[in-house]
Amino acid sequence: MATLIGNIAELVTNTTEFGIVHDAALVVEDGRIAWLGAASEAPAADDHWDLSGRTVLPGFVDSHTHLVFDGDRAAEFAARMAGERYDGGGIASTVAATRAADDDRLRGNVLRLVAEARRQGTSTLEIKSGYGLDVDTEQRLLRVAGEFTDETTFLGAHVVPPDIPRAEYVELVIGPMLAACAPLARWIDVFCEPASPHAFDGDEARTILEAGRRAGLDLRVHGNQLAPGPGVALAVELGAASVDHCTYLTDSDVDALAGSSTVATLLPGVEFSTRSPYPDARRLLDAGVTIALATDCNPGTSFTSSMPFVIALAVREMGMTPTEALAAATIGSARSLRRDDIGRIAVGARAHLTGLDAPSHEHLAYRPGTPLTHPLLLD
Amino acid sequence: MATLIGNIAELVTNTTEFGIVHDAALVVEDGRIAWLGAASEAPAADDHWDLSGRTVLPGFVDSHTHLVFDGDRAAEFAARMAGERYDGGGIASTVAATRAADDDRLRGNVLRLVAEARRQGTSTLEIKSGYGLDVDTEQRLLRVAGEFTDETTFLGAHVVPPDIPRAEYVELVIGPMLAACAPLARWIDVFCEPASPHAFDGDEARTILEAGRRAGLDLRVHGNQLAPGPGVALAVELGAASVDHCTYLTDSDVDALAGSSTVATLLPGVEFSTRSPYPDARRLLDAGVTIALATDCNPGTSFTSSMPFVIALAVREMGMTPTEALAAATIGSARSLRRDDIGRIAVGARAHLTGLDAPSHEHLAYRPGTPLTHPLLLD
Repeated sequence: MATLIGNIAELVTNTTEFGIVHDAALVVEDGRIAWLGAASEAPAADDHWDLSGRTVLPGFVDSHTHLVFDGDRAAEFAARMAGERYDGGGIASTVAATRAADDDRLRGNVLRLVAEARRQGTSTLEIKSGYGLDVDTEQRLLRVAGEFTDETTFLGAHVVPPDIPRAEYVELVIGPMLAACAPLARWIDVFCEPASPHAFDGDEARTILEAGRRAGLDLRVHGNQLAPGPGVALAVELGAASVDHCTYLTDSDVDALAGSSTVATLLPGVEFSTRSPYPDARRLLDAGVTIALATDCNPGTSFTSSMPFVIALAVREMGMTPTEALAAATIGSARSLRRDDIGRIAVGARAHLTGLDAPSHEHLAYRPGTPLTHPLLLD
Repeated sequence: MATLIGNIAELVTNTTEFGIVHDAALVVEDGRIAWLGAASEAPAADDHWDLSGRTVLPGFVDSHTHLVFDGDRAAEFAARMAGERYDGGGIASTVAATRAADDDRLRGNVLRLVAEARRQGTSTLEIKSGYGLDVDTEQRLLRVAGEFTDETTFLGAHVVPPDIPRAEYVELVIGPMLAACAPLARWIDVFCEPASPHAFDGDEARTILEAGRRAGLDLRVHGNQLAPGPGVALAVELGAASVDHCTYLTDSDVDALAGSSTVATLLPGVEFSTRSPYPDARRLLDAGVTIALATDCNPGTSFTSSMPFVIALAVREMGMTPTEALAAATIGSARSLRRDDIGRIAVGARAHLTGLDAPSHEHLAYRPGTPLTHPLLLD
């Protein structure tokens, strides 16, 4: 069964870094792109959809989320807007609520957020654990996450729980917790941030990542969010797929990223919701670093599921053009997951298509806050 | 026919400056609020809606929009994001496209944007002319605007068209254009901004506003957007209902506003989309000035129809709390239109109700970019 999707004003393909076909059409067969090109050259098909001059994008790839949790932190947010500073400590309240929630409740929470993200055009989500911080709960969170995505990440090393000595907690993470969680995860991640008393320093992060790799997991790192630190250098040295946040970078961090296959994932929703300075995407792009954009959707520092909002912020605040920001939210974030079957519209790629009710992709940033995107097709 | 709306987790009433009832219910009869209070005390009714623990807000009042136009300025936006500065000159391209569009096309454009705004919870929109700049087109724009709202504003004095000497254009505005437009408008407005070569200085603005008042129109002013200037003082002196933008204010501007009934309408979507510094709402609130928030929806400097986005920006960028921002977007903007039948949920007020899929109003700012609002009831 082949479906021809035609009358597309602008088709964003990302066949290389970025690519566009105007007045385009494409054919989908068995959940894959079978053909794309000028509408005037479209082949015959069994079925025909008319896009009425809209824009078609690759589905957004949200490569950094913390969707499995319970509890509301609206009051903490309001307090921060009245002047309090974020240091990572508020995570404890989410951990308490998450441990107390049963699987059905957690599943319902994830379902609502995934549905929200899908309605806004996101087709692939990475989901981390990290609000359990004990063996049973971390395993439970990954089991629930795995019901929604293959891109599951073990983040036992999110913060050090206040009731356990640091060294003991690292032993727990790399011992029984990793053994329980590795079969349920594709990735391991660590919050490497010596500036926060709750997070992990470079040596601890290395120990945890190396243990994860031995257990068969690929690597991601939270780094350089609150201050310059060892996260980026460590991620590059260990060949991590992505280092996320990258708000405070030295010149040697930028050089290291530029010479590596590690993607810099920027999460401007965090800086928006914590009133913090934004990372400098322009500096990274000019150095040749591959950038991904993601929401970091979590109840403490960035409770948004909206990739269009993140794109608008990236343009307003981080020196990206609308085109660069869209590329980072699709092919860039696909690369941060080491995937080439998503994030682009090319023959053989998955038919994850997002519609934009506008004549061009620039409208994602030109029309901020306005819900213009919707899912066209998911496999 | 009385409808009871119950199981409301949080009902934002704005009965005074701001007011909330938890575990609330309300009764609507003939398009007006007939009763509100604790759910446990709700009276009988003909019909019953269950809000399932959601939040109910007064419909947003978007008191500053330029919705009647044709043409796309996405390319100008992208150029600005690559470093160009906004000086008001780009309006000319919208004027050319708007003059060339027939009424049906303009009507279709407004309908799409009004529908977008309503889907996001806006129940009242002010709509300005100002992309005609000749007698026939300005009249045409107000006629189309009047099909959608009673809050129509004659803005012939948006910019000076490049092909007419300034003094001659002012004579046109206060002569034949005002005569043709006054019967179709409630308000007159002027872009008072000596810092822009395209806009009007204080003397010109005074001449235009006084002529408008003689023709029976109430006054609004665009002022102090690009630099300090005479707009705010003039608006206060003439008793305008609102002075809009207020980005650059002197201490005496703030004092004048605080001692007046003129509302300061802030439009942070403009600063977002022009990468400009934001107005200081905190300074105005601390001085006792009444603040309104609106989108300024227009194709050049703020092409958003989203009041939730404006609220999130006001909290992130202008020092407002989530509660203050919501009040400014409802009762504050109602005051800027000198209306007390909208912007609040009180017995006798219009039943313009917006639902928020969240347990509290703080989620408007806590969950930026996420479409959580929807219209519950409009008369």
